[in-house]
Amino acid sequence: MVGYAFMGAAHSQAWRNAARFFDLPLRPELTVLCGRSEDAVRAAADTHGWSDWETDWRRLVARDDIDVVDICTPGDSHAEIALAALAAGKHVLCEKPLANTTEEARVMTAAADEASRSGQRSMVGFNYRRVPALALARQLIADGRLGTVHQVRAQYLQDWIVDPAFPLVWRLQAERAGSGALGDLAAHSIDLAQYLTGQHIVGVSGLLETIVPERPLPEASSGLSASGGTGRGAVTVDDAALFTARFEGGAIGVFEATRFATGHKNAMRIEVSGSQGSLAFDCESLNELSFHDRGEDPQTAGFRRILVTEPTHPYMSAWWPPGHLIGYEHSFTHQVKDFVEAIATGAEPRPSFADGLQVQRVLAAVTDSAAADSVWTAVSDCD
Amino acid sequence: MVGYAFMGAAHSQAWRNAARFFDLPLRPELTVLCGRSEDAVRAAADTHGWSDWETDWRRLVARDDIDVVDICTPGDSHAEIALAALAAGKHVLCEKPLANTTEEARVMTAAADEASRSGQRSMVGFNYRRVPALALARQLIADGRLGTVHQVRAQYLQDWIVDPAFPLVWRLQAERAGSGALGDLAAHSIDLAQYLTGQHIVGVSGLLETIVPERPLPEASSGLSASGGTGRGAVTVDDAALFTARFEGGAIGVFEATRFATGHKNAMRIEVSGSQGSLAFDCESLNELSFHDRGEDPQTAGFRRILVTEPTHPYMSAWWPPGHLIGYEHSFTHQVKDFVEAIATGAEPRPSFADGLQVQRVLAAVTDSAAADSVWTAVSDCD
Amino acid sequence: MVGYAFMGAAHSQAWRNAARFFDLPLRPELTVLCGRSEDAVRAAADTHGWSDWETDWRRLVARDDIDVVDICTPGDSHAEIALAALAAGKHVLCEKPLANTTEEARVMTAAADEASRSGQRSMVGFNYRRVPALALARQLIADGRLGTVHQVRAQYLQDWIVDPAFPLVWRLQAERAGSGALGDLAAHSIDLAQYLTGQHIVGVSGLLETIVPERPLPEASSGLSASGGTGRGAVTVDDAALFTARFEGGAIGVFEATRFATGHKNAMRIEVSGSQGSLAFDCESLNELSFHDRGEDPQTAGFRRILVTEPTHPYMSAWWPPGHLIGYEHSFTHQVKDFVEAIATGAEPRPSFADGLQVQRVLAAVTDSAAADSVWTAVSDCD
Amino acid sequence: MVGYAFMGAAHSQAWRNAARFFDLPLRPELTVLCGRSEDAVRAAADTHGWSDWETDWRRLVARDDIDVVDICTPGDSHAEIALAALAAGKHVLCEKPLANTTEEARVMTAAADEASRSGQRSMVGFNYRRVPALALARQLIADGRLGTVHQVRAQYLQDWIVDPAFPLVWRLQAERAGSGALGDLAAHSIDLAQYLTGQHIVGVSGLLETIVPERPLPEASSGLSASGGTGRGAVTVDDAALFTARFEGGAIGVFEATRFATGHKNAMRIEVSGSQGSLAFDCESLNELSFHDRGEDPQTAGFRRILVTEPTHPYMSAWWPPGHLIGYEHSFTHQVKDFVEAIATGAEPRPSFADGLQVQRVLAAVTDSAAADSVWTAVSDCD
Repeated sequence: MVGYAFMGAAHSQAWRNAARFFDLPLRPELTVLCGRSEDAVRAAADTHGWSDWETDWRRLVARDDIDVVDICTPGDSHAEIALAALAAGKHVLCEKPLANTTEEARVMTAAADEASRSGQRSMVGFNYRRVPALALARQLIADGRLGTVHQVRAQYLQDWIVDPAFPLVWRLQAERAGSGALGDLAAHSIDLAQYLTGQHIVGVSGLLETIVPERPLPEASSGLSASGGTGRGAVTVDDAALFTARFEGGAIGVFEATRFATGHKNAMRIEVSGSQGSLAFDCESLNELSFHDRGEDPQTAGFRRILVTEPTHPYMSAWWPPGHLIGYEHSFTHQVKDFVEAIATGAEPRPSFADGLQVQRVLAAVTDSAAADSVWTAVSDCD
Repeated sequence: MVGYAFMGAAHSQAWRNAARFFDLPLRPELTVLCGRSEDAVRAAADTHGWSDWETDWRRLVARDDIDVVDICTPGDSHAEIALAALAAGKHVLCEKPLANTTEEARVMTAAADEASRSGQRSMVGFNYRRVPALALARQLIADGRLGTVHQVRAQYLQDWIVDPAFPLVWRLQAERAGSGALGDLAAHSIDLAQYLTGQHIVGVSGLLETIVPERPLPEASSGLSASGGTGRGAVTVDDAALFTARFEGGAIGVFEATRFATGHKNAMRIEVSGSQGSLAFDCESLNELSFHDRGEDPQTAGFRRILVTEPTHPYMSAWWPPGHLIGYEHSFTHQVKDFVEAIATGAEPRPSFADGLQVQRVLAAVTDSAAADSVWTAVSDCD
Repeated sequence: MVGYAFMGAAHSQAWRNAARFFDLPLRPELTVLCGRSEDAVRAAADTHGWSDWETDWRRLVARDDIDVVDICTPGDSHAEIALAALAAGKHVLCEKPLANTTEEARVMTAAADEASRSGQRSMVGFNYRRVPALALARQLIADGRLGTVHQVRAQYLQDWIVDPAFPLVWRLQAERAGSGALGDLAAHSIDLAQYLTGQHIVGVSGLLETIVPERPLPEASSGLSASGGTGRGAVTVDDAALFTARFEGGAIGVFEATRFATGHKNAMRIEVSGSQGSLAFDCESLNELSFHDRGEDPQTAGFRRILVTEPTHPYMSAWWPPGHLIGYEHSFTHQVKDFVEAIATGAEPRPSFADGLQVQRVLAAVTDSAAADSVWTAVSDCD
Repeated sequence: MVGYAFMGAAHSQAWRNAARFFDLPLRPELTVLCGRSEDAVRAAADTHGWSDWETDWRRLVARDDIDVVDICTPGDSHAEIALAALAAGKHVLCEKPLANTTEEARVMTAAADEASRSGQRSMVGFNYRRVPALALARQLIADGRLGTVHQVRAQYLQDWIVDPAFPLVWRLQAERAGSGALGDLAAHSIDLAQYLTGQHIVGVSGLLETIVPERPLPEASSGLSASGGTGRGAVTVDDAALFTARFEGGAIGVFEATRFATGHKNAMRIEVSGSQGSLAFDCESLNELSFHDRGEDPQTAGFRRILVTEPTHPYMSAWWPPGHLIGYEHSFTHQVKDFVEAIATGAEPRPSFADGLQVQRVLAAVTDSAAADSVWTAVSDCD
């Protein structure tokens, strides 16, 4: 595994635990953790349960004693590491977004397709697909319980930068992060919307807004810089991203991703309405799915609050008795389970690099539309 | 009062009850009800408590024994009736939308401004402003409790035409209704968004969609037409309207209005996020306002569910003890109270015809944008 | 009508409006309002729409121009007025509780039974039965949708006397009010529990608690009394009442009524669990009923939030389109509708005085049990 | 660790993970797992990450290479194992209930007190105390945010035996399980109520009910028994337990624990009302705490939904960013953390065996009261 921050901790937990709860055909071994600082990576390897460590991902990729490379670094290094890992014959699990640009994503997808022929599996980490409530939502839609999908409404609401005194961290700089709320948050909503409906987004109209255009530099904010002239810098990503969309099957959608929804910490919400029913999910009620079946007798019809903790619900037979909730991190354990099974069986895991590329294309179309007075912009399907 | 369908019943109830609960400077008398069918209007006058009836609104307007004309007809007759009533020296309360076109609304506004000089009061019936929870929301924002408003998100979700067999009623025909979900539902959201923030919308990017483009004619659906060829007709209004918006003070907004949100009957929801706090309202929890104050200690911060039934809350001292809920119709009683007080005191009531015109301008801009590939479209401020 | 405080206003509203929304066989006329103070009753009659007024209920009862007497006074005068009205040949609607003692209630019930033979109708004002969501709940249970009822849990939570400085008003004095939270709040829960399940409560174990045993006298609290010695008095009713219960059909129940549930204004909640399903209601979501059907596929089972605003729901065809909420006061309008229909058709209206008596018996059993170390106490069925 | 069913899996997970997320003074090693069947325990040790296994807990207790014994067996073996482990000089973590009888619990508590003098730590597994929302609730009450506690209302609602065809498993047999919903579910509510308020329960009035008194024997239900005569057996524990209670500080409480609340899987709810505020928790919203502060301006007062995921909230700095939920199992990880810290520092961990004994005394008083016509029964404080 490369990288050991927030995502690294979540992924380590998943690799350690998956075989404790699921009966896997292969048992993962946590062999090498890779990070740039020797002291830090050694300590992290010890904390998270990795046997060895490296400070250069190139050495990691070259080792014979590993079969899988899990990439948890920021998006600007995904392409280079993933391509090297694939070239070295490894299976690759790559955190989202697949890359910072559509071009990188395209090259990675081509490499993954090529490697697939020699049995290498590749997967991108849109973990929300493996929240049981959302996996159940997909099953219900695939089973036709919603009929024809007409509409999607998705919100991803955070508020961690509402304070204008919050410093100009790397996530607010385009050269490092690619984009802001769009790539960080809306990427999840886009992948989920396409996954749940089974339809690609084919066109968008976007609006990107930087609400606080200038912020104190991190040094300035921590009091380490005395010079007034260098104390502030421009925010070069979006604070909020709004867009409307059309799906290939005819549905329409409305999306909002923002870091300025005061009071909301991580409210990822999505609702799908179809000719026969509706589904709604809110990440702050992670173990619940709301379902309306239009076929019900109107006298007793209503949105049902399904507590997705029954043993027949996706992934749940591995966990606790009905009514006992699981957390955010379990989605990563489920991701490991499915990836390991795909490696063992040779099935193609999803979301594939191609799925990641498709999200990247939608993000690019939103950016292009926003830069062109929100004019309708097709999502390119040949890069 | 002209018209006595759904809105007529609600308005009659309000005129009958306002002086029973509020100490009004003038006591309304329900003098004449007007409708086209003599038998029907006579029965309705009796049911709703009107002393007399007319079948021609021109005769109504000409009567000396009335001071106020309340217009509850469909939008295509608003302009003609309102202009005549103003010309006859009456005060005018006009249901929303003010008119079916911006041009009509402009003429009506000019007439109302003119009449105002001779003491005639005019008002448009955006009744949601007078739901106590929303009136409280406006107070909190006006008091600065949200700081600078950054974002608005508004949804108006209904589902009464999801069934493709639902007939082609007049609300689905552009020549009668003007537009569909846009004018009928989004009009409320737009007025509220502008009212709550105290800011006009200055530009939009819109998408209008007709999900079921053809429906059985009402005759056909009721089995009265045997001819296959004439049994169906084109839906000429939008089933769903999506748009993004910018406000004059810098806020951005995202709006959805739809008649295809399966399972939602009348879910009018609006949330406003600012630099110091957030507010959220859902019409299905009519007596509640959700409020997040960013100044709270993070240890115990959270959205508060304010039950808006305290005697200090807007309009509530007239009603029941704390914790006893009021209904949708009470907003009309509050509307009558405020209109009567404005007539007595000579204050200018709001929402004024100018407010109604401003909503019309936004609707027109959304329509124009949707017809031009969603390109950003300014809201005209000089018609 | 006798009495014109909170309940008087609600009842007047109901008498004025019932025939405006429901097609009644008889049209109510608001003839005489009765109260002790001439100035006040004259003003109230004007405000609430009564043609005439009296200051002595005996004169009211003796008048020939009235057919119905509606009793909205405190409980200690119910028996005397009701008996006189019945003796005078009037139909009687009496607010809850039917009386302050079981003995009074027994006499009233006998008189009502006697009067019934000459066609006089009597009814007690447990208005919650006519909240549409609760009327629907009764229908579902009567239709067998819950199977055998196993359990009832009921809470009635208020907080208006949490402050120890709140004065010793008459509701806190046993000689005036009979009891405290028990008679005022639990009476509603008991009637509802018996109505919904269709079963009488046959035994209880109770605990009554006076949390703040002494309070400032009203004079003292308003600063009019300077003498320290007479400034405070004993609270002689319960602040909170807890009890367990058994129903005649085998179900068990747990009840809480309190005026010390800080933060709750009027949270009347009741849940019924049966062998085939469950229902839950919360007065703060007045237009909703929560329903779980055990027959559903576990994969998508869950409590449904039924928005009780469909035209097929009890009483709702008279009101607004689906999704538009009604308020607390509408239950009184429905009460008038049903009472007027019973008068016209000769059917026996419910809740009858006998139903009111049964509630009184349960209250008495709780009081007796609480006074006897909570020992199990049968509800007497022959007084 | 002894035992490896549901609780064994949860505890193993906790022992494996605690040091991965918390900086512990000692690092747990998973040395020996003990179970009766050799094949099964060997497999379980492998699955859950234990180095070795035993089939006799006496051998386990005698081993020199272990310092801590974690008891996850059914309640009827707790006393014997715990006493032996304490005698062998081990620290002991024992699942709840501490024992099946008050007498056993008393002996265990005495042994734990004795062992404490030689530095051995003992703790009982009321894990809900370590759900962050409940730990925060305790902090707020201890900080005086609720003022004087007046009332507690607690519900523990399950529905797994509503079906009368569900077989007579050991949990429904008194000789094995001690009691039913009372000991299994209400034990949690009692411990929490005492923990949150900081007050012992001193008296109760109870009602126990066996709703389905006879069930198919497990063999019969699985078709293995052909003899009709032996196919059914008596349920000898309570299906539902209701009781009222008084606390030493003057508060009163109402408790319900049931396995017949159709539609509820594991709804453990508790609400505490005090003179200055209220708190409410529902296990189905595990990461939330509802808080009402009576000191707030009534204009904007209301229950706040605190999302207990801030780094300043109890235990949460170890986990994910704000807004990312944790699950039921994390309470066990927190339990291990606190137990390990207590071992390292020599502090007395809570809940102690004495806390477990106190719960047992309350359970016994409820049982005694229920057997004596619900008469008020003091909770013994000298066994």
